[in-house]
This record gives sequence, C-alpha cells and structure tokens, in this order.
Amino acid sequence: MLWSESLIPTLKEAPAEAEAISHKLMLRAGLIRKLSSGVYSYLPLGLKILNKVEAIIRQEMNACGAQELLLPALQPARLWKDSGRFKEIGKVLISFRDRRDKEMVLGPTHEEVITEIARAYFKSYRQLPQILYQIQTKFRDEPRPRFGVLRSCEFIMKDAYSFDRDTEGLNQNYRKMYAAYERIFSRCGLNCSAKEADSGVMGGNVSHEFVVPVKGKEDIELAHIFKLGTKYSESLGARFLDEDGKEKPVVMGCYGIGVNRIVAAAIEQSHDKDGIIWPEGIAPYDVLVSPLNIQDKKSKQAAFEIYQDLKKHKIDVLLDERDERAGVKLKDADLIGMPLQLIIGEKNIQKGRLEIKIRKTAKTTTIKKEDAFSSVQRILLPAT
Amino acid sequence: MLWSESLIPTLKEAPAEAEAISHKLMLRAGLIRKLSSGVYSYLPLGLKILNKVEAIIRQEMNACGAQELLLPALQPARLWKDSGRFKEIGKVLISFRDRRDKEMVLGPTHEEVITEIARAYFKSYRQLPQILYQIQTKFRDEPRPRFGVLRSCEFIMKDAYSFDRDTEGLNQNYRKMYAAYERIFSRCGLNCSAKEADSGVMGGNVSHEFVVPVKGKEDIELAHIFKLGTKYSESLGARFLDEDGKEKPVVMGCYGIGVNRIVAAAIEQSHDKDGIIWPEGIAPYDVLVSPLNIQDKKSKQAAFEIYQDLKKHKIDVLLDERDERAGVKLKDADLIGMPLQLIIGEKNIQKGRLEIKIRKTAKTTTIKKEDAFSSVQRILLPAT
Repeated sequence: MLWSESLIPTLKEAPAEAEAISHKLMLRAGLIRKLSSGVYSYLPLGLKILNKVEAIIRQEMNACGAQELLLPALQPARLWKDSGRFKEIGKVLISFRDRRDKEMVLGPTHEEVITEIARAYFKSYRQLPQILYQIQTKFRDEPRPRFGVLRSCEFIMKDAYSFDRDTEGLNQNYRKMYAAYERIFSRCGLNCSAKEADSGVMGGNVSHEFVVPVKGKEDIELAHIFKLGTKYSESLGARFLDEDGKEKPVVMGCYGIGVNRIVAAAIEQSHDKDGIIWPEGIAPYDVLVSPLNIQDKKSKQAAFEIYQDLKKHKIDVLLDERDERAGVKLKDADLIGMPLQLIIGEKNIQKGRLEIKIRKTAKTTTIKKEDAFSSVQRILLPAT
Repeated sequence: MLWSESLIPTLKEAPAEAEAISHKLMLRAGLIRKLSSGVYSYLPLGLKILNKVEAIIRQEMNACGAQELLLPALQPARLWKDSGRFKEIGKVLISFRDRRDKEMVLGPTHEEVITEIARAYFKSYRQLPQILYQIQTKFRDEPRPRFGVLRSCEFIMKDAYSFDRDTEGLNQNYRKMYAAYERIFSRCGLNCSAKEADSGVMGGNVSHEFVVPVKGKEDIELAHIFKLGTKYSESLGARFLDEDGKEKPVVMGCYGIGVNRIVAAAIEQSHDKDGIIWPEGIAPYDVLVSPLNIQDKKSKQAAFEIYQDLKKHKIDVLLDERDERAGVKLKDADLIGMPLQLIIGEKNIQKGRLEIKIRKTAKTTTIKKEDAFSSVQRILLPAT
C-alpha cells in the first residue's frame, strides 16, 4: 500500500478529552475517528488491525471445533422478557418500538438468540456437544462512555456459546475455551491474567474474567467466560432427549472477547513517548519502507524496488512515498508503530545502503540495499 | 468439515410464509433462521456463502484502489437533520433517544457519516481522488419485510463513496465502479442488467441500478450507484482547497451492493426442483464427499481417505459422515447445492470405484478411487 493513497490522518496532538493512552494514540495514529459519544469509525489502518485480531480469534475458535455463524443485532424484546433479563439489565439495553409497534432491542449480548437456535435444532444428545460463535457488533447505552474504544456504545465482540449434555461436558468445553483464550492473548502480544469473577446479570455460578492492567485506571476487562448452566435453556425451553430417554435442559457456557478492547489493550501495554509499538501478530503492516526525500531520484527508485520485492514475497508492506520532510516521516512511522522500518536516506543510498530499524528496541542497523528482503525475512520469521 | 460437527439443519419443507424460491431454499438448506419479521440469523453454511461473496467484493474494490474502513451503525440524528434527509427518508429510519436524551438513528446508509470524514480529512486537491468503502450491517424499518433476506430490516451492504475535485473525476470513478460491479456479479455467477434509475432520497442527478429478474415478482435490485455531486458536501460543508486557490465542495458518488441479496439472487437464478445449484464462485464448499452407508467399513475408510487428501490439497471439502439413509444424504447434497459430489456406494467401492456427480448437469461418472483428487482438480480448475 502507498501511504499517500491510503487514509492515515496522523495528529500531532490528541483531543483534550482523551484520557487513556490507548485512546490518545488511536486518535493520533489515525486508527479511529469519533462520531458521537462512545461511537467510533475505524479508519483503514485501524480496520487492518481489527482484522488481524479477528483472524487470530477465528483460527483459535475453529481449532476448538467451534462453528461460526452470524446473529442479528435486532432482537424482539419478548425474548429478553422470557429470559427474565429485560428489566434486570437496565438502561444499557437500547430498545425501541418499530412501525408495527413491536418492541425491539439492540443486542448487547446474544444468550437469548442463541438459546432460541439451540431450542430449534439440538433435539438429541447425538447433536451435543457443540460450540457456536460469532464476531459481531454489539450495542450498549453506556452511562459514561470513555477511554475511547475501551468503553463504548458500539463495539465488536466475539461471543461463543457451548452446549452440553451435562456439567461434566460444560467443564470440558470451559477448559478448552479458557486455553484458547490464553493462546489468543499470547498471539496478540498481551500480558493478560485471569481471575474468578462475579457472574452478574449473565447468570450461572462460575465465571472468569481476563484482564490487563491499565495505568491509572481500573483494569477495565478484555474477556469474560461464564458457566451458565441451565439458566437460559430452562427459561427459554431448550431441551434435548438424552440417551436415557429423558428430556433435559441443555447445559450452556458463554465466552466473550472484546475485539476492539484487544487493540486498545495492546497499545496500553506496548507504547513509548513516540507512539505505538505493535506486537508483531497484530501490526497493521509488517514493514514500512520510508524514503526520507522522495524528490531524490535514487531514494525513490530504491524505495519502489524494495517495496515491489517485499510485496512479491507476500510481505505486508507500506511505502511512505509522501513528499514530506524527513522529520515528519520518521515521527509518523514511530507513532503508527511500524515494527520494522526500512529507512532510505540520500547519503546512504548513494553508497547502496539503507537503515533497518526495529521499533521495539529502536535499534538501527545499516544494510546493503540488496539485502533488504533477506534482512526483513530474518527478523520477521520468528514471529510468522 | 464434518457434516455431523457442523450445524446444517436441512428441512423437508419450507414454512408456508416463504414466498420467494430463494427464501424457501435458504430456509430448507439451513442457511438462515428467522428471528423476527425481516430479521435473520445466518447459520454456518449461510455465513460461509456470505464470506465468499464478501471476499469477491473486497478483491474488486481493492483492485479499484478503494480503501476499506468501518463506520458505526449508531449515528447522531443531528447529522441527518443537517443533510436534510431526516424527514425525507421517513419511517424506514429507526431512531431513538439515548439515556442522555440525545436523538440517535441506526444507519440505513452512510452518506452523512462519510461526508463528515471527508470534511475532516480531505482538505487539499492533493488528497483527491479517493474511494472509501465498507462492508457493514444496515438497518431499515421496512413497511413490509418479505422474500427472506431480499427485503429485510437488518442486512449487510457494501457501500463505497468516491471523492473528486470535479465532475470529470466523478465520471471516471463512476465508470470504474460500474465496471467493478459487472465483474463482481459475473464472478458471483449472476446474470445482471443495469438500467438508469431514479435517484430518490439519495439525491444527485444520475444513477444506475443493477437488477436480476425474479420470477413472479418485481426485479428486486442488487446494487445501486449514484452520482451524488455536491449534495452532501454542500449541506455538511466538506470543502477542499483546489489547485487554483479556491475552496470548493468535494464532488461525490456512492455505490451500494446488497451482500445478502447477492446470495438470494444467485439462488433465484440457479436452482431446480431438488434445491440450490451454487455458482462455483460462491459455493459454501467446492466438494462434498458422501459415503452412502457409513456403517460399511470400506466406504467409511475410503471417504475419510479422500476427504483428507482433498483437504491436504486445499480443496474446501465437506464430508457427510452422518449415519443417515442414502436417500436422505443424496437429497440433502442436492438441496444445499454442492457443485461437485463424490458419492461412495457399497458396491462401487468394493471394486475400488466411486461416482462423481456434477450438480449443475446432474451428470454422473464412475471413476477409480485413486483418481478422486485429479478428477476434482480437472473439474474445478476452470473455475478457480
């Protein structure tokens, strides 16, 4: 991708209202734009990072044998009344009446909808166990939206639901998902800890939340998994015929991850005074090629050659071919957190050389132009 | 994927309320489930097809140099009042007041939000032209939801927006997108025609809609592209500084595709009395392996061997290892529209042979077991 053809509106300073460092840096790096209180657009660079996080989650869910589906945001309020949560959940639930005067809600979570599906399709013990999941947009009327995407009104969640014959099966699936979550956070470069938590409005008797420490704030929660038991299957009537000929309620678990929160948490844990330092697994691009003076013919030519060569080798590369001052380019590269930067200066390229900078360590090495790809490959290989 | 581990709840008959053939077949093939009037869940097989359509759209948009981003569904009503559309669009716009008494809407389209972004970032002619797009969920309070996902209240759209210095630039981008749409529909196996249309509430003076003929109904519209001109940039103040030093409103176009509608339209155009006949480009799986009697050891062993071999060669394959009667399996295979079926019968496999069936032509050939992969490859190759 060419920088000038993308939309990466970096800012020198973050708006005063941004408190959390991740919020400031997501705005400054041009990842998001605020539309309304707690409502953000993801700009191209931000979306690329979201997609990388989602791909990791998908791989780990599929490896657990979970099936992906897609549930609607619009839900009949009736279902929430049947489960008993309509009043319990309070004002965070957005509801309205449609033109046929039917009361609808915007799903902040999908236990009711997925239980309705289990009720329809899981009729026999032979169909269990099963894990279903989705990556989908959720809505909450937050009392006090803040910290950017860490506490927002519209957000992306991966929510998975397990269905079992008995508690033993639930325990097994719960352990499986717990382990998958540890792999997901580790692949996203996050140092995350799990602790037993209150099940709250979700119900059930055991739950764990996965939290990351955030400086100066409460640890604000990346994921939460729950042993729901039969709360929803009993209230909504999701029963199956067991091997012993008896009808029993399906035993359920639910497993949520805040996808946007992973992005913000990665920034909270990995940044310095100059900007973001992306963990390799979720960086928007692997490599930035930056000719410091695009007016210099030799620099420009070398930059495009290296860019094409890296692309040919399937390296995800961004070329900063903007006609900007060297200082602006170097600052922007660090701000958006490019893990590996190939910096092409006029004097170096005259001698057929360029600099390779590792963002994390700020270490810079001078290499021969023709070694660009092999150097990149050597540094990226352990991560990919 | 193993059939018994997936959730493919095929039905012998469609609910009486389903009128359109695509609606009937999407329900019968277990692609979708109705949650509420005009609101559907996509089950795993349905989501796989959506993903294939989205991948085709993304490839063609990116090939046009368009940048993907992700805009929110929640939008402040203020923006719609500023553009003048709040009243104009009428009751299809879902609106509510949040807990801070702020009037919000659920986006049925995103001209206002994207124009706000253009206003913030496109300050100079040097930043134009630009095309931004998203694949995202939209909401409409339909007066009469019907025909399944063809006219629903929650649906997925690809909406793209072009930004130009002048009408000449707009015309160029409009032609580019028109051509991309023709490629998208062709790759989705659709026989689609474009016609000049009324611009309606969208504004602008030229628009084309892409329609497919649907038996017994109006042609129901897959895509609509508009030359918006300066309607939104003027009402919302999106101006840029042109080369001549003058401030001018950005010239815009917008380009929508109903993603779910592509799936339904493909079925309307390609089915027979037995079920769906997927065009190769968007089939949920390339190949089905179906051992008709899974209790027969030789059949089961051959089926798993072929399944593993195809998977190893990156063929997207579904194995029907259910313990069901042969008739059920054959009917289900045709119903869900598997383009290529490897049918393993007891007698054939004794002689080291199996049948390969092409869904579209219903032509069946007997081949040697060890030729399974090479036969599949020969048939799929022209399509992939």
